[in-house]
Amino acid sequence: MAAEAEQGFRPLDEASLVAYINATPALASRLGGAGGLDSIEIKEVGDGNLNFVYIVKSSSGAIVIKQALPYVRCVGDSWPMTRERAYFEASTLREHGRLCPEHTPEVYHFDRAMSLMGMRYIEPPHIILRKGLIAGVEYPLLAEHMSDYMAKTLFFTSLLYNNTTDHKQRVAQYCANVEMCRLTEQVVFSDPYRVSKFNRWTSPYLDKDAEAVREDDELKLEVAELKSMFIERAQALIHGDLHTGSIMVTPDSTQVIDPEFGFYGPMGFDIGAFLGNLILAYYSQNGHADQVNDRKAYKKWILKTIEESWNLFQKKFVELWNKHKEGNGEAYLPDIYNSSNLLSLAQKKYMTNLFHDSLGFGSAKMIRRIVGIAHVEDLESIKDASKRAECERAALNCAKTILKGRRQFETIEQVIEHIQLFDRD
Amino acid sequence: MAAEAEQGFRPLDEASLVAYINATPALASRLGGAGGLDSIEIKEVGDGNLNFVYIVKSSSGAIVIKQALPYVRCVGDSWPMTRERAYFEASTLREHGRLCPEHTPEVYHFDRAMSLMGMRYIEPPHIILRKGLIAGVEYPLLAEHMSDYMAKTLFFTSLLYNNTTDHKQRVAQYCANVEMCRLTEQVVFSDPYRVSKFNRWTSPYLDKDAEAVREDDELKLEVAELKSMFIERAQALIHGDLHTGSIMVTPDSTQVIDPEFGFYGPMGFDIGAFLGNLILAYYSQNGHADQVNDRKAYKKWILKTIEESWNLFQKKFVELWNKHKEGNGEAYLPDIYNSSNLLSLAQKKYMTNLFHDSLGFGSAKMIRRIVGIAHVEDLESIKDASKRAECERAALNCAKTILKGRRQFETIEQVIEHIQLFDRD
Repeated sequence: MAAEAEQGFRPLDEASLVAYINATPALASRLGGAGGLDSIEIKEVGDGNLNFVYIVKSSSGAIVIKQALPYVRCVGDSWPMTRERAYFEASTLREHGRLCPEHTPEVYHFDRAMSLMGMRYIEPPHIILRKGLIAGVEYPLLAEHMSDYMAKTLFFTSLLYNNTTDHKQRVAQYCANVEMCRLTEQVVFSDPYRVSKFNRWTSPYLDKDAEAVREDDELKLEVAELKSMFIERAQALIHGDLHTGSIMVTPDSTQVIDPEFGFYGPMGFDIGAFLGNLILAYYSQNGHADQVNDRKAYKKWILKTIEESWNLFQKKFVELWNKHKEGNGEAYLPDIYNSSNLLSLAQKKYMTNLFHDSLGFGSAKMIRRIVGIAHVEDLESIKDASKRAECERAALNCAKTILKGRRQFETIEQVIEHIQLFDRD
Repeated sequence: MAAEAEQGFRPLDEASLVAYINATPALASRLGGAGGLDSIEIKEVGDGNLNFVYIVKSSSGAIVIKQALPYVRCVGDSWPMTRERAYFEASTLREHGRLCPEHTPEVYHFDRAMSLMGMRYIEPPHIILRKGLIAGVEYPLLAEHMSDYMAKTLFFTSLLYNNTTDHKQRVAQYCANVEMCRLTEQVVFSDPYRVSKFNRWTSPYLDKDAEAVREDDELKLEVAELKSMFIERAQALIHGDLHTGSIMVTPDSTQVIDPEFGFYGPMGFDIGAFLGNLILAYYSQNGHADQVNDRKAYKKWILKTIEESWNLFQKKFVELWNKHKEGNGEAYLPDIYNSSNLLSLAQKKYMTNLFHDSLGFGSAKMIRRIVGIAHVEDLESIKDASKRAECERAALNCAKTILKGRRQFETIEQVIEHIQLFDRD
């Protein structure tokens, strides 16, 4: 961390936060300036594990203030974690916001020394997508919006759009977010495949299943390949944690938040995170079904959303590619690749590889949510452990086979069929 | 470039070089200190295209001084090129020298502001390997030495040995050598596949062949994949220009020089450069055969050297992996992969991928030496243009088929057979 960032840091509480806002025009102006600050109202809402998050309201506006502390909030200072993650979160939000403002909240202010960001308040009725999926709410524009977000943020930060000089300069900058990358390496690509005190699962039901994961040589070989790709391949500026808990929604609006894991990595890690968490939501529905709602129609909607998310992403990504094919992108130079036949062959090959990467990373993210440290509320909220274990086992077996056989899938429709095969409904 | 590096730069000539050495103990001491500098003798030997290289001798020692100018030497200041390449050359030499001192000349001194390096004088009878290959000289230890150099420099700078934190810190540092990477992108992965004023070939003999390269869609799709891998994949600190002109040899000694293209890239780029240039040397032999020497035995030696270089590299690389399998390498953690069966499966998979990468990059390097800007003396020195074209066409056709079909090869012996198929001897 830069020396200047070490100096001048102090954790804020509600009182000192008001003083800070008063002294910061970029924030105070959002709340009506010095006049509006009389009626200020502060609520701490950091339900995540890492940061302090305040909603600050005045009579004339509202903002969110997020501050990172040098440790994991829910554990305390026994688990240190760099505050510089706030810098990478703000940087990624700003860059993704520039590329896709429709689905990224605006950053009003960032103070690196304080690890403090002021940003748009994503107002009710926005809720975390995961909670909507548990409640069985359909979001008819979700696939449209998320495919838009992924296509724009990934395409415009890749070598399909940028020259090598700009690309490498940004890659170097984000290399410093390595602590967050290492956390992902450990919890996604390592711990689920070994005995670790952090792992947990629905015991005793899944004891044998967790053991089988640790002893599946074929699976572990594939996971090693994905892990190396995650570390080595600087393909685009990815969000790095694009699960359904990092997305806020209403039926009309979709906002992606919390990119503190942002870095230059493989595109498939973002796409896979989103799709994999939708598949987990799908398998959790049997546990939420009751006599009032059997969730069958909702499960169909989830599958349709998975299908549309990939197909729309693919369509929009290729459209961006075609639109900018005469541009400065280094990967496919116009005077080599711009015959229409060759370009479409190149696009097909690129998208097939990206599809397989996405399936691989998505499955790895599913597996770790069942036998690793961090589980998903979709499944955790199923009270009956035996029922939960049944949902989890189906998801786990589906993920294992997709991960190992991902190169056999040619279309998302084939994946949807495969998902249904494992559903013991 | 850092501001301090802009200041204090001045190109040296022989007179100012003596003053510089006198004022630099790390250099003067190699020449016997102030006393020895009376009998100093300086020879400019920069036969390369880029830098000034001086051999400086006194009665008690000899050193080499290399200075980079902010443009390409053989063209002049109309082709600017960053002097910072000297910094990356010195950094890579020092790091590779630490890992494999047997085959890397020692760096005595580096002055970033002056883009000036003092290094070991690689004394006669060392000559550039390429010149030895043209003369038909056998180097019985070449495969042993080069496999050693490649195994050590690549293994110890990869995630098989290092943790992610150290790896990413170094990756970020070398991202700044982007100008040199861009030069490679252009001359290896782009220009040969389009009409470019820089391209040349043995005309008119190879006019159709050069055109066929530009119109080979399958080839261009594969080259795009290799180009993206070259830019995106930070697998190890590679030399970046490991052809037979970057190696000095005697029958007993092998010294690798000139790593100014050094950066974190795919390992196969180095291995491929070395093997690809040996294959070019092989195909050039028919052009050097005469009544005194038909070169048949020498061609066999080259093929044996190619075979041994890969097989010994593979053996040594896996030995290093086994030796350090309990270490800090991030890619294959001991508690996940260290059952002997799984580890050997992982190694087999890793080496197969590396083999295919090496064949791909090696072929791309061959192609660009025949239809791109920079040719090799092995072929250029064949005076009879029709004979030269015949050698070149065989090499080109061999390279194209290896590049497109590289994933079909399982052993280097199969590649050797394939090479002989195209030899119209």
